[in-house]
Amino acid sequence: MTVRLIDIASWVDATIEGDESVEITGLAKIEEAQTGYLSFIANPKYQKFIETTNASAVLVGKDFPSSSKTLLRTSDPYFSFLQIARRFYQQAPQVEKGIHPTAIIGEGTRIGADVAIGAYVVIGKNCEIGEGTVIFPLCFVGDRVRIGGDCLIYAHTSIREDCRIGDRCILHMGAVVGADGFGFAFQNGRFHKLPQMGIVVLENDVEIGANTSIDRATMGETIIREGVKLDNLIQVAHNVEIDQHTAIAAQAGISGSTKIGKYVQIGGQAGFAGHLQVADRAKIGAQAGVTKSVPAGEFVTGYPARPFRVEMRELASLARLPEMVKQMRELEKRVIELEHQIEELNARKTEK
Amino acid sequence: MTVRLIDIASWVDATIEGDESVEITGLAKIEEAQTGYLSFIANPKYQKFIETTNASAVLVGKDFPSSSKTLLRTSDPYFSFLQIARRFYQQAPQVEKGIHPTAIIGEGTRIGADVAIGAYVVIGKNCEIGEGTVIFPLCFVGDRVRIGGDCLIYAHTSIREDCRIGDRCILHMGAVVGADGFGFAFQNGRFHKLPQMGIVVLENDVEIGANTSIDRATMGETIIREGVKLDNLIQVAHNVEIDQHTAIAAQAGISGSTKIGKYVQIGGQAGFAGHLQVADRAKIGAQAGVTKSVPAGEFVTGYPARPFRVEMRELASLARLPEMVKQMRELEKRVIELEHQIEELNARKTEK
Amino acid sequence: MTVRLIDIASWVDATIEGDESVEITGLAKIEEAQTGYLSFIANPKYQKFIETTNASAVLVGKDFPSSSKTLLRTSDPYFSFLQIARRFYQQAPQVEKGIHPTAIIGEGTRIGADVAIGAYVVIGKNCEIGEGTVIFPLCFVGDRVRIGGDCLIYAHTSIREDCRIGDRCILHMGAVVGADGFGFAFQNGRFHKLPQMGIVVLENDVEIGANTSIDRATMGETIIREGVKLDNLIQVAHNVEIDQHTAIAAQAGISGSTKIGKYVQIGGQAGFAGHLQVADRAKIGAQAGVTKSVPAGEFVTGYPARPFRVEMRELASLARLPEMVKQMRELEKRVIELEHQIEELNARKTEK
Repeated sequence: MTVRLIDIASWVDATIEGDESVEITGLAKIEEAQTGYLSFIANPKYQKFIETTNASAVLVGKDFPSSSKTLLRTSDPYFSFLQIARRFYQQAPQVEKGIHPTAIIGEGTRIGADVAIGAYVVIGKNCEIGEGTVIFPLCFVGDRVRIGGDCLIYAHTSIREDCRIGDRCILHMGAVVGADGFGFAFQNGRFHKLPQMGIVVLENDVEIGANTSIDRATMGETIIREGVKLDNLIQVAHNVEIDQHTAIAAQAGISGSTKIGKYVQIGGQAGFAGHLQVADRAKIGAQAGVTKSVPAGEFVTGYPARPFRVEMRELASLARLPEMVKQMRELEKRVIELEHQIEELNARKTEK
Repeated sequence: MTVRLIDIASWVDATIEGDESVEITGLAKIEEAQTGYLSFIANPKYQKFIETTNASAVLVGKDFPSSSKTLLRTSDPYFSFLQIARRFYQQAPQVEKGIHPTAIIGEGTRIGADVAIGAYVVIGKNCEIGEGTVIFPLCFVGDRVRIGGDCLIYAHTSIREDCRIGDRCILHMGAVVGADGFGFAFQNGRFHKLPQMGIVVLENDVEIGANTSIDRATMGETIIREGVKLDNLIQVAHNVEIDQHTAIAAQAGISGSTKIGKYVQIGGQAGFAGHLQVADRAKIGAQAGVTKSVPAGEFVTGYPARPFRVEMRELASLARLPEMVKQMRELEKRVIELEHQIEELNARKTEK
Repeated sequence: MTVRLIDIASWVDATIEGDESVEITGLAKIEEAQTGYLSFIANPKYQKFIETTNASAVLVGKDFPSSSKTLLRTSDPYFSFLQIARRFYQQAPQVEKGIHPTAIIGEGTRIGADVAIGAYVVIGKNCEIGEGTVIFPLCFVGDRVRIGGDCLIYAHTSIREDCRIGDRCILHMGAVVGADGFGFAFQNGRFHKLPQMGIVVLENDVEIGANTSIDRATMGETIIREGVKLDNLIQVAHNVEIDQHTAIAAQAGISGSTKIGKYVQIGGQAGFAGHLQVADRAKIGAQAGVTKSVPAGEFVTGYPARPFRVEMRELASLARLPEMVKQMRELEKRVIELEHQIEELNARKTEK
């Protein structure tokens, strides 16, 4: 794929300094860029690469020194590079516009303009698929599902009946939305399944990682609010709510009915008991085992999760503990010696 | 979908008090029910909702006070509601009865009556699929697999060759049954794959969560016995046995050849070393790291897993440890002071 | 399936002692083998089974005593059995040679000789699939992917655009290769996606477990080097490198840009912070939380991960801690008693 540098410059309001006729075929880091590539320098420590890079053009800041290379100047070259990259790679669609002849679309399903629905996609009845949404091959969408516009649904994603997905959501390969919550009544020596009658709602701009699974509510909704980003292999149980702009790293697990606030950051492999409240802007360390609600802005770590500074102090003490065991034994000997001496002093006194 | 209230009443032997002509279009919690819905009140604290709910009928106990609402009375309204819900939602099949023309069925495979096999399902040779089983679109079933009756196999499930699945099993989206166990011989500086020649057996009434993976045995069988319930994203390694009516929460992992007893409860993200025995009715805390066999009925938690009361005591001591470090330093000072004074007393004595 | 014993003997240069006309229909452990089966005895403690087994032939060592059973002798009967098993089960292909008529292959894709590509496989444009590779039904392969020869790609595997896979790799069901790395810039109160422009490279002889996910690099490559074995449900983040012949157990998670050396062994559910170096032949315990780089050959365990012997000492001290709290209280009492007595002694002295 080839895009003219003057077109790229117009995407981010950049000024070109040098050869305006350059054509760009790829993007890369300054030290890895090849001929035909656009790169960027945002950090002064990479400035030295300007003379040796093979890049055909380099995005730089307003005050970057002039160079024999063709430069693109913007006020924030890193952010501009990201904007360009997003647009550049969007120009290389993986799924062709339109509906692949092998896709199976149920009765009553309405499909917006400008979609791309790939081979062997199966979509149920009475669904809605918004304008510009791309669905990769081999996805499954159950009956009455609503998917917004400009979504990107990668291969092998499954979305079960009645779930709702907002605009500009991205679901990665193997993501599962709307499987049954894990609910049983135990009676007469065996488990009886509790019907899982609710749904999953993903609001706008949500991203769901590969093989991540979000269970439908028992009744009502499991909700992932606007701008939430979930990494791979995460478990979100029934009736969980995750509020706006929270980010969760891979393999974390959130038990039933727990509510996570806005702008929360959760580390990888962290786990949450059910029915907790994690307030806004809390930070949860990787592998933390959260057994109690977490106040706003608190940073908790470890198992069971406690405030970071408390855990650090405890771990530091624990590291000193083997030494302390010795010290205590030593101290006890000294006390015994003292007791012995006092006894002797007292004995002499009595003798007198 | 619409079901007459008198039909619903007959499903659970309920008596109707009020308008027998009501038609039900959905089920919901008492505070969320809309017109046309059936709801229930099992807990007295929800009794107050009877006057304000929009539900068109409410399931209540035998001694619930009369009301202007239409009531359905049974002896256990919660359990009755669950039974109704299971049946109500079964009336809304997602996959049409019969075999979808795009499903590919291998030679020699026998399919029972009344099945529903969805689009783009691929089933191998010489399989058996029992009566009434539903297989959602895009599933893969390898050669010689036997699946019992009335199973529910959701989209994107994979079952490899020779595995056996009982009656009334539920496999959620992305579940994997019968992948190779993780076995290698290390020789001459590299791993050599050990062929995984065994199978996986799921007995009756087993439920397997989304993206959960159960490896086939190296030789023999990995067995999940009757009534076991596995949540999402669980790893069950080769040659594991899980005995009847055990429930395992999401993201737990069980290493090779470990045997889990009956009625065991395992928390989320718990991990088990290989070749252990976890006896009947043991309870394993979330995130526990089980490194030794667990006796019957024992409740173990933490890493490494130990009896809950022991862990609680240790964690309580650990929380006091930073304070204790100070106390010990304090105590040492007092001992030094004592030693000093004793020395002085002894010195005076000698002087005399 | 039936293979003549003399053919099997020729695979591993074994000598036959007994009935050369035997035909083998299966392989099993000595205590589970049935008539028509080949088994093996490598460990002297299983020698007693030679008289009672139903196996029709048994692989044994050079010095194993003669028997009325038909024996196959080699110098390493266990290793020979593995070689036989691998070949025996390869004779039972699950996917027929050739390209299934429902497989969709993009323009410009080149397919080697002797492949088997199953039903409803979707392969993008300009890919290369090497000689002898088997792709099970319902797999997705994006544009420009290169897959080497003799690979085994099980059902429901997804490989996104531009990734490269070596020879003899095995990808289990639900494996995901090349999903976007988890990278965002936080600006103006929301996350902005960082385009993930890199790829994933799997070198030769790599095995990837079921539902394991390997993210593509932000720029450059996420690399899994020759002979690496990954179990199920593992997370490998963007820009990770895993060097030759490292083995990682199920549900482990490796954060972005971390580098794992050669011959490293990683236990199940272990987690790694980003940007670490784990040097060659390190061993990481199950559930360890690795927060710092690990030197060559070191064995680390626990959270936060520390050398095994240090952790053992700390855990032993921790187990003694509740007792120690009591001892300290006891010791303090004795010190108070001493202080009291000294005070008394001093008082008497003053009196004098």
